[in-house]
This record gives sequence, structure tokens and C-alpha cells, in this order.
Amino acid sequence: MDTGNLVLPSSDLLRNYSERISQLDQRIEDLKTDFRESSDAFFMCSMALVIFFMQCGFAFLEAGAVRSKNTTNILIKNLLDSCIAIIGYWAIGWALAYGAVGNSSLGLFFGQSEFFLASMEDYPRFFFQYVFAATASTIVSGAVAERCEFVTYITYCTAISAFVYPIVTHWGWSDDGWMKKGFQGESVTTSYVDFAGSGLVHLCAGTISFIAAYMLGPRIGRFSENREEESPEIRGHSVPVKTEKESFQFAALGGFILMFGFLAFNGGSVPDVAAHGEGKIVALAMINTILCGAFAAITYLIIHYKTKGKWTLLLTINACLTGMVSACAGCNNMMPWACAFTGIGAGLMYYTLCKVMLRLKIDDPLDAFAVHAGGGFWGIFAVCIVSRQGIAYGIVDSISGSDGVSVSQSFAQLGWNMVCALAIVLWSSISMIPLFVFLKKINKFRVPAEIELKGLDIHKHGEAAYPLHAYGHGWDDYEKIKERQRKISRDAEGFLKLVINTIARVAFYRFPSAASLGSSSIP
Amino acid sequence: MDTGNLVLPSSDLLRNYSERISQLDQRIEDLKTDFRESSDAFFMCSMALVIFFMQCGFAFLEAGAVRSKNTTNILIKNLLDSCIAIIGYWAIGWALAYGAVGNSSLGLFFGQSEFFLASMEDYPRFFFQYVFAATASTIVSGAVAERCEFVTYITYCTAISAFVYPIVTHWGWSDDGWMKKGFQGESVTTSYVDFAGSGLVHLCAGTISFIAAYMLGPRIGRFSENREEESPEIRGHSVPVKTEKESFQFAALGGFILMFGFLAFNGGSVPDVAAHGEGKIVALAMINTILCGAFAAITYLIIHYKTKGKWTLLLTINACLTGMVSACAGCNNMMPWACAFTGIGAGLMYYTLCKVMLRLKIDDPLDAFAVHAGGGFWGIFAVCIVSRQGIAYGIVDSISGSDGVSVSQSFAQLGWNMVCALAIVLWSSISMIPLFVFLKKINKFRVPAEIELKGLDIHKHGEAAYPLHAYGHGWDDYEKIKERQRKISRDAEGFLKLVINTIARVAFYRFPSAASLGSSSIP
Amino acid sequence: MDTGNLVLPSSDLLRNYSERISQLDQRIEDLKTDFRESSDAFFMCSMALVIFFMQCGFAFLEAGAVRSKNTTNILIKNLLDSCIAIIGYWAIGWALAYGAVGNSSLGLFFGQSEFFLASMEDYPRFFFQYVFAATASTIVSGAVAERCEFVTYITYCTAISAFVYPIVTHWGWSDDGWMKKGFQGESVTTSYVDFAGSGLVHLCAGTISFIAAYMLGPRIGRFSENREEESPEIRGHSVPVKTEKESFQFAALGGFILMFGFLAFNGGSVPDVAAHGEGKIVALAMINTILCGAFAAITYLIIHYKTKGKWTLLLTINACLTGMVSACAGCNNMMPWACAFTGIGAGLMYYTLCKVMLRLKIDDPLDAFAVHAGGGFWGIFAVCIVSRQGIAYGIVDSISGSDGVSVSQSFAQLGWNMVCALAIVLWSSISMIPLFVFLKKINKFRVPAEIELKGLDIHKHGEAAYPLHAYGHGWDDYEKIKERQRKISRDAEGFLKLVINTIARVAFYRFPSAASLGSSSIP
Repeated sequence: MDTGNLVLPSSDLLRNYSERISQLDQRIEDLKTDFRESSDAFFMCSMALVIFFMQCGFAFLEAGAVRSKNTTNILIKNLLDSCIAIIGYWAIGWALAYGAVGNSSLGLFFGQSEFFLASMEDYPRFFFQYVFAATASTIVSGAVAERCEFVTYITYCTAISAFVYPIVTHWGWSDDGWMKKGFQGESVTTSYVDFAGSGLVHLCAGTISFIAAYMLGPRIGRFSENREEESPEIRGHSVPVKTEKESFQFAALGGFILMFGFLAFNGGSVPDVAAHGEGKIVALAMINTILCGAFAAITYLIIHYKTKGKWTLLLTINACLTGMVSACAGCNNMMPWACAFTGIGAGLMYYTLCKVMLRLKIDDPLDAFAVHAGGGFWGIFAVCIVSRQGIAYGIVDSISGSDGVSVSQSFAQLGWNMVCALAIVLWSSISMIPLFVFLKKINKFRVPAEIELKGLDIHKHGEAAYPLHAYGHGWDDYEKIKERQRKISRDAEGFLKLVINTIARVAFYRFPSAASLGSSSIP
Repeated sequence: MDTGNLVLPSSDLLRNYSERISQLDQRIEDLKTDFRESSDAFFMCSMALVIFFMQCGFAFLEAGAVRSKNTTNILIKNLLDSCIAIIGYWAIGWALAYGAVGNSSLGLFFGQSEFFLASMEDYPRFFFQYVFAATASTIVSGAVAERCEFVTYITYCTAISAFVYPIVTHWGWSDDGWMKKGFQGESVTTSYVDFAGSGLVHLCAGTISFIAAYMLGPRIGRFSENREEESPEIRGHSVPVKTEKESFQFAALGGFILMFGFLAFNGGSVPDVAAHGEGKIVALAMINTILCGAFAAITYLIIHYKTKGKWTLLLTINACLTGMVSACAGCNNMMPWACAFTGIGAGLMYYTLCKVMLRLKIDDPLDAFAVHAGGGFWGIFAVCIVSRQGIAYGIVDSISGSDGVSVSQSFAQLGWNMVCALAIVLWSSISMIPLFVFLKKINKFRVPAEIELKGLDIHKHGEAAYPLHAYGHGWDDYEKIKERQRKISRDAEGFLKLVINTIARVAFYRFPSAASLGSSSIP
Repeated sequence: MDTGNLVLPSSDLLRNYSERISQLDQRIEDLKTDFRESSDAFFMCSMALVIFFMQCGFAFLEAGAVRSKNTTNILIKNLLDSCIAIIGYWAIGWALAYGAVGNSSLGLFFGQSEFFLASMEDYPRFFFQYVFAATASTIVSGAVAERCEFVTYITYCTAISAFVYPIVTHWGWSDDGWMKKGFQGESVTTSYVDFAGSGLVHLCAGTISFIAAYMLGPRIGRFSENREEESPEIRGHSVPVKTEKESFQFAALGGFILMFGFLAFNGGSVPDVAAHGEGKIVALAMINTILCGAFAAITYLIIHYKTKGKWTLLLTINACLTGMVSACAGCNNMMPWACAFTGIGAGLMYYTLCKVMLRLKIDDPLDAFAVHAGGGFWGIFAVCIVSRQGIAYGIVDSISGSDGVSVSQSFAQLGWNMVCALAIVLWSSISMIPLFVFLKKINKFRVPAEIELKGLDIHKHGEAAYPLHAYGHGWDDYEKIKERQRKISRDAEGFLKLVINTIARVAFYRFPSAASLGSSSIP
């Protein structure tokens, strides 16, 4: 305002300014770091939370789609899945997937440190990756439903969550992985493109589902022996035909929960929500996921109605999920219109693969192969066509002469993605087949026919209608069980009884229980 | 500390300071923008996610409340709802609701750009608005349950999500809308007050529910022809009397999920969570929502117990939801005590409207009218009474002589809200009645009596108990279906078969399928 | 670059710099505050939202575990729980727990202001605390299932959410509470350690469950009178044996939802997610919660399989929940390996307490005591052993001679936690026993045997199979009900009828209803 007095500032004053500015600089940097860390952690945790809930979705989709005699069996499998996966992924899985690698070229193939999370503190990322691993291993349970041995289930579940899936994610998502590093040519550079795991999660799990379903063989009575036409209509099998209303509703419940979860699955894969503009990407990913699901569902519904004259619920849910699976690969990077292409393709893919499986007489009760392998493969294919760096843009830019996406680059990307898809399929097969063969050898792969016919739930319900000695397959030898029980009683329960009695005596000696009728001593 | 050496700072140094300060300034501004954008995006996405899950809630509330013969029908309707709404809202809905407007006064009534989200990048907001649109259109499915044609369902669902609801939200929530602009007088200014859509979502959908239920007529057997007293007690109808336990539980499941979702519905409506003090508003909105629900539920429970001597579950859930609907309008801006007024009023409103509907013999299986129109209207009424700018405060301030809320202003606000309520009711009626009349004309409105009596699920289950030619209404002409099937087979499946066979031959030629018994060729 | 011209800066310019720097300083501070407040609010609200959904989980865990004749009863109890708790906690509970205290030493025991949230604006924290209170009071409903009077339920539910639980949280979580203040010795200082409420929520509610179950006595037929061996196997009781598949699935649904909710319960307890490094803690808490659950579930599953030869679903779910309960106390502050200790211990604790309850013939249908009191007690014990300040570290540091955790300090902490556990148990007992005794005195504690045998749902379904005069217990006097109904009709409904008729006449006079057959007047 006024001209002011001219002064000679002391160097201290000037130094002081400089210092204060530097401090501000540091404070802003700190604030930014805190903000990003806390936003990212919160975001990853809450999305992982919703994805964790997908376990409930899978459990009920499957519980509703199997016959009621195997309901408990499928529910406990899904429950244990989360439990086994957290232990397996904590102990080994994370290390193989994202552990630091040494200098050797082995680092291209698996991580080599941070077992048991030793000296690892990026808990949000671990949590997020764990729920993905749990999802991958739970997918397979649909394909082996109603006939797989419990011990096989535990074995493959551990193998997938601790070994097979982590390694494949190292390839595709770790900066050290060979897929991610990709091919660096002169004119083109490629890197595996799979935002939320169409290939790494779903194609991998879908392939294993196919192998498991093929090696287990169909459920007894699933396919008629001579009348091809009627085989898919056999009663009591819930896909495609259902007789029980309640199960129906449960499958729908599971489907709804999975749709809910998928939005988090895809939206949550944005790596750094706090970075500039990433928030929008989260929303875009979610919108695209729903759109792909919607197009796939409606496509399938129309085809089904045109051919069968019925509006199907269960298969429409599955088609919707296929669309969402196919959205995983590129949902962060495509315009909503591209979902029409991706979604409709996914619907057709689901329709086709269901038919292929029926023709091949491979029994996949939940269509795990068609939904996850089909949707997954289509996803990593479609992303190279319609995403913003895809072939469609390449061709349009080349025709219009504009300087955008290069055609050769976009085709090279497609080629690389297909190479990676092949690698995923091969790795899933090579790693799991020996395991299944071994389990078959030791006769622990499939339950005996008698058990399968009676239903796997029998031994859990202890219903008198079934004599105890008929429980079969591991539980069948009633006397052996009794003997084991007696031994445990003598050993461990001896101690336990002592403790219980002591507690009970001390605490309740003169405090007669409400139900005791005369004798308060505990034998 | 020490006096320092006096120096002559170079102008560069000073300029440098100035520049560094400006840079800091810019960095702070950037950080703030990033922080707000990412927080808002994350907040909107996660709330929208939960609201999306309300589709599951509606599906099960309805599935549990209809007779089991129509369960699949109601579930698939709710599933398709999300699918149709995303496509409709993406293509047209958003543009009509929030697209930029031109200079003409038409802009007061609807948006005119951003169809198919062209050049629109505010994805979080779109996602959030979409789940609202899906909610609006799903509400109606309860009112038309068990007797509405599939094609009618698809038609009205598209109409609501793409046209009727978007326009009404343009009026009330877009800055260009006539309700939002309101009335600007000398002493009073008014603008439509409806925070989370008591009027725009619920009154609109509730009105359409009423119209649809009225025009469809009651379900066969719902009302006795002469004995008025007993009509509400007819067996097999789930509201108010239920015979099936499982359905009961499903309705409760749906109710719980809706309560969960409503908290996000109302809490999530805070537009800018990162702004100063807005975080608290989110929590306040959620608390008020629960409180209103609680007061409404308890009010209704007591009335019901006093008059019927029973503690009812389903109707209490509905009353609770009515309370939550009524909280939408003002939950961000009222003290918790005001929820007693709003909630109790909602409970009474629900009770009254249920009775009115019974007296008028209009069959609304889910009480969609009473819950949503009743609760919605009461909400936009009550917000003018007990919110912080409400009449209650106006009167108290006027009595105490303090200089707070003006009585005339608060009454004008009530008047304006009532005008808007009337407009919503009229618009919903005017836009939907012709559609329903048209559907009735072409005989696609209500299913034939035979189908209704047998249940809508028959044609989907393909149960042998019902001969194929009895499927009726669009599916009844079995031969026509077969012919269509054959044509599709020849046309599309010809190609498909080729592909399948090729794949199968290449991949599995020497790989005999587990189920094949002799012939591995695929016909 | 160049040496620059030397200038004499005006003092204004310098002052201006100083001011601008101060402004920046202030802006950073404001931004930081806004960021923390909004992040914390959003975090707390979204976690509370998920915890609120646990009500649905409890409802279905319980609905699936009781006999079908009592399903509605248990569902409505869980619904009302949220309603009663919000009103009780708003009116009194919050004030007792976190209201400001005066100077007197009473402040050590309860808060004394902010009743009805007067002049309290920390809504996010209130919302978060409310869902905890609702959880605490809903736990008990499992223990009293199938035999408790409705009025007792309402009474204890109010008492817990408004009085017993708030006071205990004041002790342990309010800075003014005596447990939190702890013991300040010369060499050791202790403060109650219970991050997410192993003791304050679960031990408290579990203790009340024990008392209620003991005082109510077992369900009729639960324990055989002379053949001890068979008593736990009685048919129709769902734990441990089930006959109905659907219920089974519902229990599993409830279990899955609870596991989902528990992650938010524990992860959400981080007080200030925006603070430096706290985001990681959220994830760590969630990971540890799953790990503890997994170890507990697998431990129990193995023991059960070894002793019974069956893989049990329901009890495994309960064991998993026990593990998660035990994780509450220290999940923010222990390494994942420590979960092996905590989880396995929880599994054993659950196994032991179930046996103790059976021996004592106390009937706790949902194992609420074993899960919540057992897991809760074990949690506040284990946290003193294996958390980063625990005895295990103390011993290792003492052996290795390093200067980390002091052994005496860690033992003192264990002692203090045990004192607090005792205080929680005593307080829960002392405050609830008189209430239950009173209810027993006035004969409103347990339903009459006749009602219990017929099932509590009868009076709600109004099924003709049961004569109206047999409804019993409060509803039994049919004539009295009719009389009350008639009175209400004359009084309140007289007015209502007037309103309804007026509305109906005005709106629909010349608008004949779809169902009316001749007479459009409403009697």
C-alpha cells in the first residue's frame, strides 16, 4: 500500500524464512503421505471386507445348487476355505507371490522371502491379496460338489491358496514377474494386462475346476447312458433343473451377494485410491462391472428364452457372474459402451461352454468352468480389443490417421495376453494334475458310490435312520472310531476332565445346577 | 539469537522466496483437491455399493412375502431390475436427470445432454445416482407381485429408471430444476427440501405402486366377496398372515438387509463428505435413520398388539422401513429428538394407509404404497416441521422473541414442499397411467387367471406334473416353441455346433471324456 | 543463475512473506484437521454400518439354531433389539458411558452428562458405540431362546443397552474410568487392555447369558432325567443335532454374516484411522481376527473329529466365532504368529466350556456363554501373554538381556486385566440378578410350559388349527383381548375411521375400487 521503509533484513531473518518454508514443505509432504497411506489402507480394508463376504455368496450359491443331502458338506467346505486360505497364504502364499526376489532369474517365477509375513508390514495389501486367494480356491468347490472327499478338498484348497495361485499372481502382478515384465521390442512393448484377475484368478481357478470335474467324473445319474437328449434334465440335480424351492432361494441369495462382492472385487483393485484421479477409476470399474454383468445376463436370458421358452433365474445369475468375471480384466480402462461388447461376448461364452461341457459329459454342478474360465478367458481377450489401448481404437485411429493407439502395438498386446492365458492354463494343469492323480491313487479322491447316493451329510447329522456302521469312507469303521474315542478319553480328556471337574467343583459345589435332579457330582 | 550480519538480499533470492511460497500454495491446493476428490469418490462408491445390496434386500423381502409358487418370478424380477436400470440410466436416465441444459426454459424440466455418458466423467456420482434409480424401480415390483406379466414388468422398469424417475430428480436435485430453484419472494425464499429422496424416490415409486396395484386389481381370492371382516385373513397370502416358515425367514432377511442398506441410502446422500464438518452429518443421518425406524416400529408394534393381541414380525419390519423412508427427507438436518415426531408419525401413517388400502380393496402384497408413498409423504411434510429450519423452531423462536427461524419462512417452505409433493404424484400418475392402459389394451398387463392360480413359476421349473402345453401365456404354444427352437438350431446353433465340435475335436479327440461310454464323437 | 541486482526489500514485503507463510501454516493445519475429521467419521460410519449388519447375523444364527416353532419369536427379538438399543443408548447409555464427569470420584464409575445427546456432536463416535451396545444386548437372546417371556426380553434388553453395558464401558474405555486409569506404581503402571471389547462386550454379555440361562432353567426335554449320556442328542434341538435342513442353512448364513461383521468390529475399533500408521493397524486387526478364528475353528474341528468322527458345521462356526471374540482384546497389537496361541486357546476354551455347561445341565441353546464369555475371558488373558507388551516378550527379552518389555510390568498387566475381568463378571451379575429375580417373582420370566411346548410363534400366526383361547400367557384371555379391541375401536379408531372415511370419500368417491362389487361406501 504505502511505499514502506527500506530496511536491511538480517541474514537470520532470511534464513528463518527459508527454514520455515522448508518446514512447510516437509509438513505438506508428511500430510500427503499420511493421507495416502491412511486412505489406501482404509480403502483396501473395506473393499477386502466386502470381498471376504463373497465367501458367503459362494457358499449359498453352491448350497442352493446342490441336492439337499449334501448341503452341510458344501457349507462347511466354504467355511473352512477362508480358514485354510488365511493360514496358507500367511505362511507361504504371500511370500511366493510378493516376497522380495534375489538376483537370480528365479525371481521371474516366484517370490523368495517374507514367509509368515516376517518383516512385512504392508498389512492392508496382504489382507486384500488374501481375500483374492480365498476366492480363487473357493471357486473350485462348485465343480467338485457332491462327490469329492473331504481330505481332497482340504488338500487342493491348501495347494491353491498357498502355492498355485500365489505363483501365478507373482507372474502377472508382481513387478518381478515375467508376465508383467513382458516383451520389450523395438516398436512394441507389452505387459500382461489383467486389472482385477480375469486371468490370474478366474481362468486359473476355472481351469482347475475343469480338471477336477473331469477327473472326478460326473455325479451318479447325472448323464443318462444312452438318451443324450434328456441327460441335462435329470431330476434332483439343481442345475439346470430344480425341485426344491428353498434351495432355489439360497442360490439367488448367493448370487446377489456375489454381485455385491464383485463390485468390490473389481473396484477395489485400484491400487492407490488416493492418487490423483483414481477415485473416478474406482467408480468406473464398478459401473463397468455392473454393465458387463447386465449385458451378459440379458444376452443369455434372451437366448435361453428363444430356445427354451422359459425365463431362467439360476442360469441368468450365472451369466451375470460370467459378465462380471469378464469385466475384471479391463473394467478400469474401458468406456461404458465397451461393456456391451464384453458383456454380450461373456453371455455367449457362458452359453457355449455350458453346451460344450454337456456334450463332453463333464459334470460341473455349478458351471464353475463356464463362468470362471470362460468369463476369465474372454475378459483378457476382450480387454485387448475394446479397452482404451485396444485394437478397436488402434484400427479407428489408423483409419482416421490420428496419432493415437498403434495397431501393431495393440495386436502385440493381444498376442502377449494370449501367451499369458496359455501359461496360466498350463501352470494350473501341471501343478494340480499330479496332486489329483496322487489322491486318486490313495483312494481319497472321490467318495464311495454308497456314500454319494446316501448323501455326504449323513455322517454329520447322526440321524438314527441310518445305522452308525453305514457311515462309510473314513467314518465307516464304527468300532475304530469308538476305540479312538476311548483312547482320546483316556489321554487328553483325562486331563480335561480333571480341569473341568476342578473348575466345576470349585465354582459350583454348593450351587446346584438348575437341571440336576439329585446328584450334583460330575462323573 | 545473535544479531546477525546485515546483508543485502539479491532480488533473485526474494523472488525465489515468493515463488516457493506460491508453489507451496499450489501444492496445498492440489493436495486439498486430490483429497476431496478421492474421499468423495471412495465415500460415494462404498455407500452406493451398500445401496446396491438393497436389491438383495428387496428381492428377499418380496420373495418371503409372496406365495411359494411365485418365488422364482419375484426373484428374477429383482435381479433383472439392476440390469435394466443400469442400461436405461446409462443410456438416457442420467442425461435427463443431470445432463447440462440449454438456454430454453425446458431446462427447468429435464436435462439435455450426456446421453450414454458421453463426455461425462463424474463416475462416482453416476454410480450413486444409478443405485437410487434401481431402488426406485424395484419398489414397484412388490405392488404388482404374483399377477403381473413379465413384459409389463420389463416395460415399466425401463420407463421408471430411464424416464420417470430421472425427470423427477432433475426437478428436485439438479440445480436447474424448477423445484430446486423454488420460489424467491421478497420476505421468503423456498427450495424443495428432500435430502435423500423421501419424495423424489419413495413418494414417486409409491405412487406408481398404488396406480399399478389399483389397475391390476387384487390377486384372485385376496378379498372375500361379501364378508369384509375376514378378507385380510385369507390363507396363503403372506401379508398379513403366513403359513410357510421359510418364507417368513426370507422376508426377515430382506428386512434386515434393507435396514442395513437404508443407513447407506441416507448417510450416503451427504454430497461432499470431505468438506468441513460433513463427516458428522453422515453419522447424524445414519443415527436419525435408525431412530426414526425404531420409533415407527415400536409405535406400530404397540398399536398392533393393543388391537390384535399379537406381536407381529413382518408388519413391524414394514413399519420400521416406513420410519426410515420418512427419515430420508431431513435426516441430515434434524436433532435426534425430532425423530420421535417423524418416526411415530410414520408408524401411524403406515397403520392408517394399510387400513385405507384394505377398505378400498386394493391389493398391494408388500404394502409398497403404505411404506414408500406413506413414509415418503410424511417425510417431506415432517421435515418442514421439526428440522432445524422447521415450523417448530419458527414458533419457538417467535415466542421467545429470538432472531432465529422466521415463522412465515418456515410455513412457506412447508407450502412449497407440499406443492412439490403434488407435482411428484401428478407426474408419476400422468406418465405411467397411459403406459399401463396401453399394456392392458394389448392384453399384456396381467397374467391369465389360470396361470395366476397355478403360479408363475411353473413354466420355469419344467416340472412334469404340468403338461408342457399348459404353460400358457406366451409360452403355451409348445409346438411354436419347438419350431422356434428348431429354427435357431438350424441358424445360429449350426454355426455354434461347428465351433463346439471343432474345439472339442481338436482339444479332446484322443482324450476320452469321463462319461463317454463308447462313442467319443459329438453328434 | 546470474548474480542478480542487489535491492533493499521493503519491510512490507518481508512482513508480507511472514504473513503468507503463517497463512500457509494455518491452511495446512486446517486441511489436516478436515482430513482427519472426515476420514475418521467416514471410517467409523462405514465400520459401524457393517457391525450393525451383525444384528442380521445374530438373528439368523439364532433363527437357524432354534426349533422352527420359535423362529418368528427369535427374529422379532433381534429386530427389536436394534430399536430398543438406539433409544436406550441415545437417552441414557451414551451419557453413562462417555458423558463428561464432575469432580467427585463418582466419575470413576459413570458419566454424568450428555443425556439425550444434549450438546454432544461427536455423532460418528456415538453411532459406533451404539452398534457395540446393540451387539452386547443381542448376544443374550441366544441364551434365553425358546423359553423367555417377551416382557423379560424387552426389560433386560433395555437394561443392558442403557445401563449395564454403558457403565462397564465407562470403566474400561472412558479416560475417566477406573479400569482405564489403572494402577500407577513405582516400577509398573497398568491400564486395562482390551482393544475391541473381549471383556467389555463379550465377557459382560456372556456372563449375563450364563445367569439368564441358569435362572431360566433348561428347555423342556433338553436334558434326559436319568440317562446322562444321551441328553445332548435329543432330537429337535438344534445344537448339537439338527433335523431341519433349512434352519441349518440359516445358521450358516448367520455365521458367515457374523464373521464378516467381526472384521469390522475389530478393525473398526482403531480410534483414529487418519493418524500416521493407523491404517496398517486396521488391516492388522482384521488379519489377526481371521487368523484367530481360523485357528480356533480348525482346532475345534480336529478335536471334534477325533472324538466323534464327524466334521461338524455349526459347532465349527461357533468355534470360529469364539476365536474372533478372543481376538478382540489384542488384535491391534499382536503379530500374526500370536494368533496361533490365541486362536487355539479359544478353540479349546469353547470345547471345554460347552462340556462344562452340559455337565452342569445348564441349557444355553446358542452356546452364548461358551462363545462370548469363554472367548472374551481368554482374549483379555491371552493379550497379556502374546501381545507386543506381553509376558512372552518380557521373558524372551529378560533371557536375552535386551532392554524391551519388563517381566514384572507384563505380569502386573496380566494381574490388572484379571482384576478387571472379575469386576466385569461381578458387575454383570450384581446388576442383572435382581432384575431377573424380580421378573421371576411377578411371573413374567419364563413362558408357561404349555406355550413352550406349542411354540412361541403360535400367537403370531393366528392359525385356525389352534383355538384362539389357547394362546395363553398374556394373550390367552381371548375375551379380554376382544374387549380391549372394542375399546380401542371406540376410542382411537373412531377418530381414525373418520379420517380414513373422509380421505377415502374425498379421493375415491367417484373412483370405484377395482375390487368393490356394488357397494363403494366404506362402512
